[in-house]
Amino acid sequence: MNTPDSPLIPSFAPVAARLRIVLVGTQHPGNIGAAARALKTMGLSRLVLVAPEDYPAEEAFRRAAGADDLLGDAQVVATLAEAVADCHFVLGCTARSRRVALEEHAPREAAGRAVQAAAQGGEVALVFGRERTGLSNEELQLCHGAVHIPANPDYSSLNLAAAVQVLAYELRLALLALEQAPVPEAPHPDEAPASHEHLEGFFAQLGDTLDAIDFHKGRTPDSAMRKLRRLYLRANLNEQEVRLLRGILADAQRMARLARGQAG
Amino acid sequence: MNTPDSPLIPSFAPVAARLRIVLVGTQHPGNIGAAARALKTMGLSRLVLVAPEDYPAEEAFRRAAGADDLLGDAQVVATLAEAVADCHFVLGCTARSRRVALEEHAPREAAGRAVQAAAQGGEVALVFGRERTGLSNEELQLCHGAVHIPANPDYSSLNLAAAVQVLAYELRLALLALEQAPVPEAPHPDEAPASHEHLEGFFAQLGDTLDAIDFHKGRTPDSAMRKLRRLYLRANLNEQEVRLLRGILADAQRMARLARGQAG
Repeated sequence: MNTPDSPLIPSFAPVAARLRIVLVGTQHPGNIGAAARALKTMGLSRLVLVAPEDYPAEEAFRRAAGADDLLGDAQVVATLAEAVADCHFVLGCTARSRRVALEEHAPREAAGRAVQAAAQGGEVALVFGRERTGLSNEELQLCHGAVHIPANPDYSSLNLAAAVQVLAYELRLALLALEQAPVPEAPHPDEAPASHEHLEGFFAQLGDTLDAIDFHKGRTPDSAMRKLRRLYLRANLNEQEVRLLRGILADAQRMARLARGQAG
Repeated sequence: MNTPDSPLIPSFAPVAARLRIVLVGTQHPGNIGAAARALKTMGLSRLVLVAPEDYPAEEAFRRAAGADDLLGDAQVVATLAEAVADCHFVLGCTARSRRVALEEHAPREAAGRAVQAAAQGGEVALVFGRERTGLSNEELQLCHGAVHIPANPDYSSLNLAAAVQVLAYELRLALLALEQAPVPEAPHPDEAPASHEHLEGFFAQLGDTLDAIDFHKGRTPDSAMRKLRRLYLRANLNEQEVRLLRGILADAQRMARLARGQAG
């Protein structure tokens, strides 16, 4: 169907509509405008701004050029958790390998996975951090994986909008390739990737359970939880698995309550 | 050799050194600076500016950020012909299919060809036109082929530096892939791609010959020469072939002179 007369292939738009680009704590409004322009040139349209430092701003609309419609539609929220609450697949862009050892993908592979998840009905987010400091470790812990643009190790400081352009370009190529290689059928709802909200519910219950069974024994709980989050996010749990794990936790919590009852 | 300790693979630098990015008639100095930054992040270093409208300019150095060294080394020349005189492979970036029917490549394929030509010892140029109007038809006629970033047909206006970033990114991926798939051995000098200078010498002689043999018969010679240029540029002539063709032309010219001598 990709004829010169109909350059927008039928499956492009609905899949692209499930891909959002999230800019976290952007410092320069010009970069927000340039990012909007980069997205529109690649046929993407969903921009979410997390606590931008200086926005709305004239400079953003000036740099957006003909993409001011996309900028006008951008959602502004206070935290990354809000921005990705309904997402099933979240990738964080990092300038270099980070202490938080997320699984790291090259842009091409990352775009392929993102488009495949969106083609199967999932909501997908690509997250870009602050110009100087990137994403915090807490923010990276909300991500299922990391994307790393293989830049010059001696000078890796891509401009924010330039990084958005590279990823948006790879997303467009992956979207255009959908026609050539049909996506596997969407899985049964039980086997669909767990939503961010359900995963966070699981992590909260996991934390409670570790407390209840006195797992930490006086040590700081942060390190264990970080490792557990990493492990489970990497595993791309489906809804059924999250329910299963939460069932196990519920039983462990019940036993802990009983044990305390006997002790008390 | 591509170990974490030596991220710059041995063959990257010498091949990258034969790749130049040429910006023609750039209007906004900020775009020149942003392009320099884009190149440096991808490990490229050669920038040539053809008749920039406003340069040198403080804004260019400000937007170059840490890539001001690359900007300081940039060569400034008056015409595209000068910028590519010693090149063996020249690709022009176009926003959309143009009247000049050059062979059109996607960025990935174009980068692969460019790096292969450079790895075999050729000098290679990627040429970007003016922000509003791109490259003129005359400038495109100096190119062996065109590169087209497959942008959103409803909004294809990539910022100049964003287009440079996409192509530089693809060049870097192709350069990094050199290690995985060794390039075929460099051809014998005779079989090396003809230099731009030699090709232009051939085209000039071809034009003279067409006149001498009265090929045009009163028609305007431009259209025929455009088609011939296109044909020969697409063929990627080697040095030996150019010499062969020029030998044929020399003979044709000699016969024409003889014929005129007899007629006169």
